[in-house]
Amino acid sequence: MQRYLSLIEGALSEIFDSLPARPKKLHEAMAYAVNVGGKRIRPIIAMASSEAVGGKKEDALYPACAIELLHNYTLVHDDLPSMDNDTLRRGKPTVWAKYGEPDALLVGDALQALAFATAARAPRNVQGIIAILGEKALGVVEGQVEDIAASGDADYIYTHKTADLFIAAAVMGGLAGGANEPQIESLKTFALNLGLAFQYEDDILDNDGVCDREETLKRIETTTSAALKALETLPGDTSFLKSLAEKLKTRLV
Amino acid sequence: MQRYLSLIEGALSEIFDSLPARPKKLHEAMAYAVNVGGKRIRPIIAMASSEAVGGKKEDALYPACAIELLHNYTLVHDDLPSMDNDTLRRGKPTVWAKYGEPDALLVGDALQALAFATAARAPRNVQGIIAILGEKALGVVEGQVEDIAASGDADYIYTHKTADLFIAAAVMGGLAGGANEPQIESLKTFALNLGLAFQYEDDILDNDGVCDREETLKRIETTTSAALKALETLPGDTSFLKSLAEKLKTRLV
Repeated sequence: MQRYLSLIEGALSEIFDSLPARPKKLHEAMAYAVNVGGKRIRPIIAMASSEAVGGKKEDALYPACAIELLHNYTLVHDDLPSMDNDTLRRGKPTVWAKYGEPDALLVGDALQALAFATAARAPRNVQGIIAILGEKALGVVEGQVEDIAASGDADYIYTHKTADLFIAAAVMGGLAGGANEPQIESLKTFALNLGLAFQYEDDILDNDGVCDREETLKRIETTTSAALKALETLPGDTSFLKSLAEKLKTRLV
Repeated sequence: MQRYLSLIEGALSEIFDSLPARPKKLHEAMAYAVNVGGKRIRPIIAMASSEAVGGKKEDALYPACAIELLHNYTLVHDDLPSMDNDTLRRGKPTVWAKYGEPDALLVGDALQALAFATAARAPRNVQGIIAILGEKALGVVEGQVEDIAASGDADYIYTHKTADLFIAAAVMGGLAGGANEPQIESLKTFALNLGLAFQYEDDILDNDGVCDREETLKRIETTTSAALKALETLPGDTSFLKSLAEKLKTRLV
């Protein structure tokens, strides 16, 4: 875990340090948004996915940073007054609460642009990497629109709001590590099911009354098994991705 | 002109038609944002830049659509209540006035994602194309932050708010058409100066009292000459780019 984290934090620092000198306030606010204490689960998935197909974790370093930048832009915009109107995230002021609403809008926009620029620094398969990042960045917004519209279709919303960025992380990592097409399909299946399991677990932890606990535990079992099965076809070191899926299952039962 | 426009409109329609079925409202609002009557100057610059380096205009078709999608996302977000609070653009309701503020935020976010996914469909040099699009998409936001902060540094704001997307259009088009490094530098010089001339002209047409007419006309002359000079080094058909720069100069004098 720590092997991944120190690489990710170092690369994110380098990315922010190499932004232009102006406007300082924007770049400070962007760094604030990205450094308020996330677990970096998506970038870790990206790097471990490169290893799972036989690549090096370093191959996926820029795609890993890209998915974290993109994830954080979605949080900055979700928190805005016209959306969830949240003033705190992880115990700290949200970007709009700290820097104002116009700057928070622009911080999110800038983080999305920086995410794509960063993903393009991958050592290979840049066309495929940008294609999946673009597709899933659009998917997250589609999920958010349906969530606001309260369509009641939880699986659609879970797939797009949560699993889409897990899929983008895994596929970008795999492509950066030199994956072939069947390996990419396995990573997609893994990440979709991991993302769904992750979201079902959140439902239980939130205990928000909407969910049927027994039914949800069964779904966590099914999706986790599907995620683990997908890993079996991969040629590289899948131990980290495996432990990630197993940890989800055992935290609740 | 019409040769470019029919290709661009056809490709934009194809892009919107191939979005997923859901959520219909989001995709309708995205198409509305992009089809409210823009002049398509940036995508035309992209296609003409491919021709200017000896490529085909079709090579730059997806980068051309990408820059138009990106430009329109910036307009959708600029119009929001927390920014310029505009209810009309080109005589029609702005996206937030028509679809509400949350959806307008998400329409902008989705258009930016779609812009990058579209640029990645270029036939060659995708890494360089995404790098310049990412850099200049960030630059536009930087310009907007300084504009809001009223730093008074007009050249910084003009360079980033206007010229950056002209540069991205020209460089993406050149890269898609197979340009080499010196040709890319010439396209950058051309587009920077064209963008500045374009913005100076706007100042005069707006006649907003801030500008010194004589001084501004002199700047239009200088930047237009620099733009035309940069074209002389290019090996392909520069006639359209040349006429574009000359038209700017002659509209005012």
